[in-house]
Amino acid sequence: MEDLWQEKKIALFGATGVVGKELLALLLEKKVPVENLFLFASRKKNLSLQGSSFFIDSIPSSLPKVDIAFLCAGSSISEKLWNAFEKTTYVIDLSSKFRMDPHTPLIIPEINLEEIQNHKKITSPNCVATLLCLALFPLHQKYTLKKVILSTYQAASGGGSLLMEKLLVQTKAFLQKKPLKDPYAFNVYPHESPMQENGYAEEEIKIQEETKKILKLPSLCISATSIRVPVFRSHSISVHAEFEKKPLLQEVRNLLQKAPGISFLQDNFPTPFYTDQKREVFCGRIRSPSPYSLEMWIVGDQLLKGAALNAVQIGETLINKESYVLEEKNG
Amino acid sequence: MEDLWQEKKIALFGATGVVGKELLALLLEKKVPVENLFLFASRKKNLSLQGSSFFIDSIPSSLPKVDIAFLCAGSSISEKLWNAFEKTTYVIDLSSKFRMDPHTPLIIPEINLEEIQNHKKITSPNCVATLLCLALFPLHQKYTLKKVILSTYQAASGGGSLLMEKLLVQTKAFLQKKPLKDPYAFNVYPHESPMQENGYAEEEIKIQEETKKILKLPSLCISATSIRVPVFRSHSISVHAEFEKKPLLQEVRNLLQKAPGISFLQDNFPTPFYTDQKREVFCGRIRSPSPYSLEMWIVGDQLLKGAALNAVQIGETLINKESYVLEEKNG
Repeated sequence: MEDLWQEKKIALFGATGVVGKELLALLLEKKVPVENLFLFASRKKNLSLQGSSFFIDSIPSSLPKVDIAFLCAGSSISEKLWNAFEKTTYVIDLSSKFRMDPHTPLIIPEINLEEIQNHKKITSPNCVATLLCLALFPLHQKYTLKKVILSTYQAASGGGSLLMEKLLVQTKAFLQKKPLKDPYAFNVYPHESPMQENGYAEEEIKIQEETKKILKLPSLCISATSIRVPVFRSHSISVHAEFEKKPLLQEVRNLLQKAPGISFLQDNFPTPFYTDQKREVFCGRIRSPSPYSLEMWIVGDQLLKGAALNAVQIGETLINKESYVLEEKNG
Repeated sequence: MEDLWQEKKIALFGATGVVGKELLALLLEKKVPVENLFLFASRKKNLSLQGSSFFIDSIPSSLPKVDIAFLCAGSSISEKLWNAFEKTTYVIDLSSKFRMDPHTPLIIPEINLEEIQNHKKITSPNCVATLLCLALFPLHQKYTLKKVILSTYQAASGGGSLLMEKLLVQTKAFLQKKPLKDPYAFNVYPHESPMQENGYAEEEIKIQEETKKILKLPSLCISATSIRVPVFRSHSISVHAEFEKKPLLQEVRNLLQKAPGISFLQDNFPTPFYTDQKREVFCGRIRSPSPYSLEMWIVGDQLLKGAALNAVQIGETLINKESYVLEEKNG
């Protein structure tokens, strides 16, 4: 697999952000040669990562010719760059800008890989939607989802390095008994994204709408409550799901044990601290409050499967598909 | 009201615990004379509170003759003391030991005060059940509850002073980069009460069963997920509720604004930091995900309305009732 990556030229926009740095680390792990990497951020900077130094350039007016461009510099940069590359470039957008565009695939490789066919521009979903769908998908295939009610316990990393720093600084201030007015430290609060007219935060709407799109269930009843907790980087989700068919607990456990990307904890429960920097999505505490419903506890690293890892998996799929087509032609 | 308390002899068991200390502070506020207070804990101790020093005795074999006994020293002490007082003594138990006994009232004064009639032994509910029921009751009266799905964000105070200390110590250790294995600091985890065969924690079962009893809805569909968050003393609850009749959002807001014990935040959301040491239960983020359902965010101080304050309110009701009966006889 690394062989394929070694031949590719990759551009990464937002390389100095918390997601960008994880994405860069994953690309280095794939042995993408440093000279094939074009790294950009809002400002020029030297970045140290894994003992190497990388030059991060500001976003140029003339874009490099690359095989894959990863966009993780926010929605407005994604909007600017979406149509700016050559037609042969695969564009993988981690922002929310184009996720709900009906002509653009929103991909979790373990779920809806077939949708990337004939597409050059792909979007990677919201972090909570990714963890949630990964766990619900094998159950939906078997029992058909009808309703999902979820409450999140979201980490600081979802708000970027500034929010992680805020948590650290305020915790220290609290311990020094400095006066704080409704801080992040030792507190929980609804997600800081703008509240919509219907009372839901933008983040909650993203989770709801993206889940419907990924699972191809446009009329799914789904309602999310997004809450920030003082945790650094893994998100947790408390999920109540109702199905058309009766889920049997032992069968559910087997399905989750076999599901790709999922680590099912039978007799234990995952915590964000435990899952920090792990690649799988962890499920535990499967319960059945009534014959057609299930509850579970899902935790996953927001920066990895919740963002950078999913995007790199999409990239790998595109590269593989290409090599497969090439082999077909040559064969 | 203070006049009535001044004549009463009060025993408080568990006076050195986090709930006991709040209860003592509330009794001092009611101007209960210090010489009328009989304070007990597992060990003899001198307790400083509000600039005064109190002698806390170990639990004696011969109990004092008192008008009211507050039991907040845990279930096993409550079991021992439940039948140990004179018949004229009102016993108010804050432990879970007798809450589900069908012959014993489980009281939230704003909801089911009438049930204390002819009872000398009363129980005060689980902290989450108290906050939840207080907010749901006015809505249930109007629309009839069918289903409740809730996820909690529970503070350290529910686990007593030891858990609060653990949070503090581990936070400091984390900041000093000491190695920690799945700590409480910067983490969330399912409630530490024993897991039952059906996968629910004992705490979750308490919330479910006590809510059914308080709201007199034995067949209510209710499912709780109890999670500890690194917060010191206020609990938060994310609630999804379904009703027989259609709740109208403006009417719901009016009902909550008028509801006793509730502070409804129309354009804002309450946080545990904000509600710390406040007496009301705060509601916000009212949303209607579908015509017959509502979602909301409830926060309240676990040690006050969630425990000590509710018990003192029960005590005050009993004293008032007695004075009312006396006045009737004299009148």
